[in-house]
Amino acid sequence: MRVGVLTGGGDCPGLNAVIRAIVRKGVQEYGHEFTGFRDGWRGPIEGHAVPLDIPAVRGILPRGGTILGSSRTNPYQEDAGVERIRETLARQRVDALIVIGGEDTLGVAARLSAEEGVPCVGVPKTIDNDLSATDYTFGFDTAVGIATEAIDRLHTTAESHMRVLVVEVMGRHAGWIALHSGLAGGANAILIPEQRFDVEQVCAWVTSRFRASYAPIVVVAEGAMPKDGDLVLKDESLDSFGHVRLSGVGEWLAKQIEKRTGNEARTTVLGHVQRGGTPSAFDRWLATRFGLHAIDAVHEGDHGVMVALRGTDIVRVPLAAATEKLKTVDPKLYEEVGVFFG
Amino acid sequence: MRVGVLTGGGDCPGLNAVIRAIVRKGVQEYGHEFTGFRDGWRGPIEGHAVPLDIPAVRGILPRGGTILGSSRTNPYQEDAGVERIRETLARQRVDALIVIGGEDTLGVAARLSAEEGVPCVGVPKTIDNDLSATDYTFGFDTAVGIATEAIDRLHTTAESHMRVLVVEVMGRHAGWIALHSGLAGGANAILIPEQRFDVEQVCAWVTSRFRASYAPIVVVAEGAMPKDGDLVLKDESLDSFGHVRLSGVGEWLAKQIEKRTGNEARTTVLGHVQRGGTPSAFDRWLATRFGLHAIDAVHEGDHGVMVALRGTDIVRVPLAAATEKLKTVDPKLYEEVGVFFG
Amino acid sequence: MRVGVLTGGGDCPGLNAVIRAIVRKGVQEYGHEFTGFRDGWRGPIEGHAVPLDIPAVRGILPRGGTILGSSRTNPYQEDAGVERIRETLARQRVDALIVIGGEDTLGVAARLSAEEGVPCVGVPKTIDNDLSATDYTFGFDTAVGIATEAIDRLHTTAESHMRVLVVEVMGRHAGWIALHSGLAGGANAILIPEQRFDVEQVCAWVTSRFRASYAPIVVVAEGAMPKDGDLVLKDESLDSFGHVRLSGVGEWLAKQIEKRTGNEARTTVLGHVQRGGTPSAFDRWLATRFGLHAIDAVHEGDHGVMVALRGTDIVRVPLAAATEKLKTVDPKLYEEVGVFFG
Amino acid sequence: MRVGVLTGGGDCPGLNAVIRAIVRKGVQEYGHEFTGFRDGWRGPIEGHAVPLDIPAVRGILPRGGTILGSSRTNPYQEDAGVERIRETLARQRVDALIVIGGEDTLGVAARLSAEEGVPCVGVPKTIDNDLSATDYTFGFDTAVGIATEAIDRLHTTAESHMRVLVVEVMGRHAGWIALHSGLAGGANAILIPEQRFDVEQVCAWVTSRFRASYAPIVVVAEGAMPKDGDLVLKDESLDSFGHVRLSGVGEWLAKQIEKRTGNEARTTVLGHVQRGGTPSAFDRWLATRFGLHAIDAVHEGDHGVMVALRGTDIVRVPLAAATEKLKTVDPKLYEEVGVFFG
Repeated sequence: MRVGVLTGGGDCPGLNAVIRAIVRKGVQEYGHEFTGFRDGWRGPIEGHAVPLDIPAVRGILPRGGTILGSSRTNPYQEDAGVERIRETLARQRVDALIVIGGEDTLGVAARLSAEEGVPCVGVPKTIDNDLSATDYTFGFDTAVGIATEAIDRLHTTAESHMRVLVVEVMGRHAGWIALHSGLAGGANAILIPEQRFDVEQVCAWVTSRFRASYAPIVVVAEGAMPKDGDLVLKDESLDSFGHVRLSGVGEWLAKQIEKRTGNEARTTVLGHVQRGGTPSAFDRWLATRFGLHAIDAVHEGDHGVMVALRGTDIVRVPLAAATEKLKTVDPKLYEEVGVFFG
Repeated sequence: MRVGVLTGGGDCPGLNAVIRAIVRKGVQEYGHEFTGFRDGWRGPIEGHAVPLDIPAVRGILPRGGTILGSSRTNPYQEDAGVERIRETLARQRVDALIVIGGEDTLGVAARLSAEEGVPCVGVPKTIDNDLSATDYTFGFDTAVGIATEAIDRLHTTAESHMRVLVVEVMGRHAGWIALHSGLAGGANAILIPEQRFDVEQVCAWVTSRFRASYAPIVVVAEGAMPKDGDLVLKDESLDSFGHVRLSGVGEWLAKQIEKRTGNEARTTVLGHVQRGGTPSAFDRWLATRFGLHAIDAVHEGDHGVMVALRGTDIVRVPLAAATEKLKTVDPKLYEEVGVFFG
Repeated sequence: MRVGVLTGGGDCPGLNAVIRAIVRKGVQEYGHEFTGFRDGWRGPIEGHAVPLDIPAVRGILPRGGTILGSSRTNPYQEDAGVERIRETLARQRVDALIVIGGEDTLGVAARLSAEEGVPCVGVPKTIDNDLSATDYTFGFDTAVGIATEAIDRLHTTAESHMRVLVVEVMGRHAGWIALHSGLAGGANAILIPEQRFDVEQVCAWVTSRFRASYAPIVVVAEGAMPKDGDLVLKDESLDSFGHVRLSGVGEWLAKQIEKRTGNEARTTVLGHVQRGGTPSAFDRWLATRFGLHAIDAVHEGDHGVMVALRGTDIVRVPLAAATEKLKTVDPKLYEEVGVFFG
Repeated sequence: MRVGVLTGGGDCPGLNAVIRAIVRKGVQEYGHEFTGFRDGWRGPIEGHAVPLDIPAVRGILPRGGTILGSSRTNPYQEDAGVERIRETLARQRVDALIVIGGEDTLGVAARLSAEEGVPCVGVPKTIDNDLSATDYTFGFDTAVGIATEAIDRLHTTAESHMRVLVVEVMGRHAGWIALHSGLAGGANAILIPEQRFDVEQVCAWVTSRFRASYAPIVVVAEGAMPKDGDLVLKDESLDSFGHVRLSGVGEWLAKQIEKRTGNEARTTVLGHVQRGGTPSAFDRWLATRFGLHAIDAVHEGDHGVMVALRGTDIVRVPLAAATEKLKTVDPKLYEEVGVFFG
């Protein structure tokens, strides 16, 4: 049996751990052979295949990124994309495909599986942890750890200068990274995309924190928005490629706090460091188990499914679940954490 | 309402996060007052109480250990221990007790609650993660992270000198730390207390790893035992002062590997560094949520319960569950991980 | 003998280690008493003194920031600033002052010492390491370590997406942090304030790196400037509140690289995380030794001096040396490192 | 010109950084070709050469260990060892040899250079930092960092249980790692091989620390010895290979402390984790500069020399300096640090 593997979407610590687990178990226990496809769906579209055997996966467990490369290419938006994938799979004699990716990448896998009968097994990947079907996704714990360490560091600067420090973390549609790292880092306010925030309330928390002779840290998800709908938060401008360039909510908020409270405020945008580098032990464990269970599903001919975490178990859910609904922060959980604000 | 808090048993990263969460929510949302008892059950027995208010818990979230101190004192083994606890609680006008500890500490709480009607709420703590009632306990993730980082480091030494490196990690009765850190660190063999190991099998893995031109790492839980019941694992000898000197399973195993394979082997015993220092973000999150839910239970008068993690939810289970049965590594899970051995 | 201590300027990991060393040695060996002044020179101007004894410095060694607070207040720019300092020192019966700070803070100490006869001993502090009189300053090693770890992480993202990653690090006037972290992180180009860079050259390095199938990392000091004097580096624009929004050299450069090479480029601005949090072991060692030698100088009545590192020795140099000339990166050293560009 | 490279002795973070710098500069600037020899002097003796070009050194900068392998083989103790080296060098047409190693490895290089006219350039490597000719050696800063982080972690366990924690670190003949990590970690006693320690004095420090309500940390170099010459510190026994197996000073000391003070004491032996894994930024910087200057010396035909750090400069000293005298801790420096004991 020959199995194709590809990784799509934004990179995420743990991708290599998934690939390694698939190959180790597939080769050793089931005698499968593997073909790696480069750069997400672009690989099977353009017929860009690379050998994937045990030597190829040696030593990759602790390495961030993906040895297969990634892209956001969508075959349904490419000329004859689906057809070319079918051709590549036939030419490479690939019997099944393991697709590691987020909503978009797995959405393609779900459609290929359902509409074209391409045997696909999915492994969910979203650093934002915003997938309903699984308790956690790998990469998230690493991102939270990096953000928490940064917040730990910023506390001392905030205290020494009695400044407000605003930390902008990842999370366009869901506030999980902000919530977890903000709580773990002892933030005095955490702002998430799920609930529009009230700038006056944030300023009240800031002021109350200063009154206790401590300097406030405000953690804000990049997708968080202020309540007042009239505020144009995003400072849109076109760059030289005509791409829209946005300046973020973090800087905007720091200025607001300065203006309204009279306290100095500074912003740190953590950016790409949150998604790079060696995965945490938790993410290596989760990613490896996802890989082991994905190859089991392939071996059993159980296609159209995706592996997922439930408690401490790895289960299988329909691939379609990957695109179902965003797992956002439950208002009750956000309220629970709110006791630490101010 | 006045609530007593104590921490018992071995220290564990996250204890302070629990204490902080209890006090922050208890004071701010419910208007409770708090009394801290020093050094586990010894505090209420000896009447050693300390003030516990919001200033007392400032800045403790990222700190390992416990600001309340700990001990393994058991009131049922002390002279009039239970009576003296009742007296202390009465004198301090403590209406309920939050007990943070492991099997022994919570076992006392369960008995005090059931037999004496002392209103207790438990928070489970075991760095070994060997409690059936909860998916994870805090401290475990930190320990696994520290052990994994050590294994990462040891790989390069093993490779440079083509030596076997045996890493002994915590885990007397359950192999969770060995299993998680061994898998995350890419170990070539993981030995756990749940399954007696076959030294010849370990040597076969070691040899097979060398054949692939890589140096093997063997992770062994301190409580792991070889199959052959006749082997005296502990290598007792008297030192120059006549003290008995025990060498652990790690050193014993390294000697066996040297003798049987002819390869050099070295042992590293991680010891106390695994349980000290700042908690990981995961553990801060879990410990904080445990604290928030424990004070909720107290506030609602729901005594005789313990908080626990199920998936991503915090639930309440009977306090007795703390002492029920050890959560050991499922043989199927161990087998799943075995694909990486050798 | 009563000694005053103050910390001025931007915070820097190691400040607390200096304070602790001064107090521990001063009290234990010399029997001195200490007065801490809050927030740099603002403390003695406003008479804001705090007790500084051994309990006050317990546990502060691993903590970033400064327990005394800091500010950029300059007594020569304040109304009767110098006079008020003299009054405070007299009122507090302070016999000598240990001043921990950078060019500005120590410049005041040098003047007070020379012109007013205030007995001052200086401890140099600049996270940028740009002081000629000393081989290294504390805080620098921590900052380089944080920046290097971030670059390590960014490599995997760069590779996975075959993008250029531009990392903007601290360094307005000197490129030490960029040089050390860029070299340690394996950057493909390092741009420093000391030498105006040629955008075309940077693009050539980027292209050459991609040709070798690797993704380039460009490290740029915040004070680095392109060669062409006509280029308006700062991309000023007004945000929705009419505030001026400045984007730094990092973002500007990423845009240039995108435009000129056609490769995607992203920027990470490390910002305040570089100067916060626990000091590295190197910085704790250096800061502690600076503190020990500063109190020795005070004890010996050797005023008007500053401690400095020469090789592995701590020496004393005139306080005036603090403001003499900036230690910039030697062109020969920069050229030496240039072998790794491209 | 063809240059041979080998690494000998114990592994040390930074070895790969040296190799990479040599090859990058040698190939790019000077057009040299390189031959790597495997496993220290064993490589040229047995003719075990491996290709060493720019692709071979890609990505090795952050990796611990050495891609060339290492050994303690000494050609002067091997049958016709020197002759076989000469033959290998001739066969491989190697014009000069860069030897990266400690006292033993460089001692051979010095002799081969002086007696046999083999053109050698040395790069000093000792994780113990005990070489007089250079201010620092690479690997040392990494080891100190790891030991300091462990001590930081152990503080919280010591405090929570009011126990003495004894930490045994590397350093057979010199106490540099103990001194730096002990100071940086805030230890209450630091014991080094250079000065026999008085157990009663250590117990007095321990007791005094407990009196201040803090738990003591004792850092002891593996080569430290108690004053009383009659004490047989080392518990010698032969292992199955007839190797002498020593149980360390750390465990011995913990027992002494328990016996004499009545306080519980525990030992942690850090062991191999101190010398493995990714090098610190400082070590990457130093190792890289050593490599760059070593290839310069080779290129200039300046043989029989070794590179060394003086202040912030890399200089050349005679190869013989490598074996001259051990750099031990200056009694005055030890006394300086002693203010923190107790």
